[in-house]
Amino acid sequence: MKTPAIILVKPQLGENIGMCARAMLNCGLTDLRIVAPRDGWPSESATAASSGAFEKGVVPRIYATTADAVADCTFILATTARTRDMVKDVFTPRTAATKLREEGGQTAILFGAERAGLVNEDIALATAVVTIPLNPEFTSLNIAQAVLLMSYEWFTAADKTAPAQLLTGEAALATAADIDGMVKRLEDEMDNGGFFRAPELRPTLVRNLAALFVRTRMTVQEVATFHGIISALISVREKKKH
Amino acid sequence: MKTPAIILVKPQLGENIGMCARAMLNCGLTDLRIVAPRDGWPSESATAASSGAFEKGVVPRIYATTADAVADCTFILATTARTRDMVKDVFTPRTAATKLREEGGQTAILFGAERAGLVNEDIALATAVVTIPLNPEFTSLNIAQAVLLMSYEWFTAADKTAPAQLLTGEAALATAADIDGMVKRLEDEMDNGGFFRAPELRPTLVRNLAALFVRTRMTVQEVATFHGIISALISVREKKKH
Repeated sequence: MKTPAIILVKPQLGENIGMCARAMLNCGLTDLRIVAPRDGWPSESATAASSGAFEKGVVPRIYATTADAVADCTFILATTARTRDMVKDVFTPRTAATKLREEGGQTAILFGAERAGLVNEDIALATAVVTIPLNPEFTSLNIAQAVLLMSYEWFTAADKTAPAQLLTGEAALATAADIDGMVKRLEDEMDNGGFFRAPELRPTLVRNLAALFVRTRMTVQEVATFHGIISALISVREKKKH
Repeated sequence: MKTPAIILVKPQLGENIGMCARAMLNCGLTDLRIVAPRDGWPSESATAASSGAFEKGVVPRIYATTADAVADCTFILATTARTRDMVKDVFTPRTAATKLREEGGQTAILFGAERAGLVNEDIALATAVVTIPLNPEFTSLNIAQAVLLMSYEWFTAADKTAPAQLLTGEAALATAADIDGMVKRLEDEMDNGGFFRAPELRPTLVRNLAALFVRTRMTVQEVATFHGIISALISVREKKKH
């Protein structure tokens, strides 16, 4: 599958172009098309802001017009917040990402210049519009931020990372028996220390204590540390006796 | 519900702090906590880069330590790409956003300094870790980009925008009868012009032509324009006859 082309229409600052390239490569996109960059190309400030994205994969190409830049594309999205007098499908970025991945041919996403955004002539070239949902009271979004959000949605649409997992590094998790043994020893030593003045509360208290240690997912090492803590606290008590 | 606090731990550049504030407000977040900013506070470069986010809602507060900054929080996430020798739940940003919205108390998301990221002492304070899925060959993410992605996921987790809708502006869509009438007239005039040399192909061709006009979702105005086009083309033919 061809990855979507990111098309910047008449961008002004080289720095923003560089930051767009960085955001693209963060999400595995490399096809950057730049229409009539105001400050020319190549751009030192773009390279400086790219964090090496151009060396590491992003290929920039320059076009005179938006029509030239989209000439090989079969599915073209225009990012714009404004609704205009035009009949177009409007997608959220998440839905747009799914559509981009379903398309067989070359796809593209158009981004307008800083401040001005896309003009109607650019939007007319697009198959559909994408509007990024944002706080309606503060929608001013930097062009590189917009490129990041669209690229991120494209990336995550196929990302297989587990939504939630327990990170344990080198550590082995303690078994139920490990934790049960530790809690039983703690209970015995609490008993020896005269903790259970109201014996009728003992079962509930011990159960809740066990629940705390179980839900925190202790490691084998942490159980060993706790045994050491118990021993240390007992030794204070033993010393006091003498 | 309290919105999540965004906590920047020892950020270096004021410009990055300002861009973080801008990204936060884009997504409706206003609680910005800054731990020991290297270049001090207030910061002119932060204000300049914020696009007015501080005037329009983001409240920055300064703390000496990360522990101070999270003191009132019950659910704390640490953003980090690195796995360390620590037992923690790791969430994707999307799952993290759901967890943040489910939590009743004050929540927070920790972000490390440029380059260095969060240190183990900061991560140890967190309830869980968030790792942003990115191209493994280019994971270098600007701090403001990381803040944007987390804030965006928080915002979209409750956003009710329709995933896809047809934007028509002021225009009224044509009815099936409008389109059918236009196609029938076109077919008649094609017939008059001698288009159907192979009559057995006529039904399929007309059906496909109708399908094209139906799927493009024509407006009433566009149907009227097409009638005008047909009339104009006929008039060329009529003139040629004479």
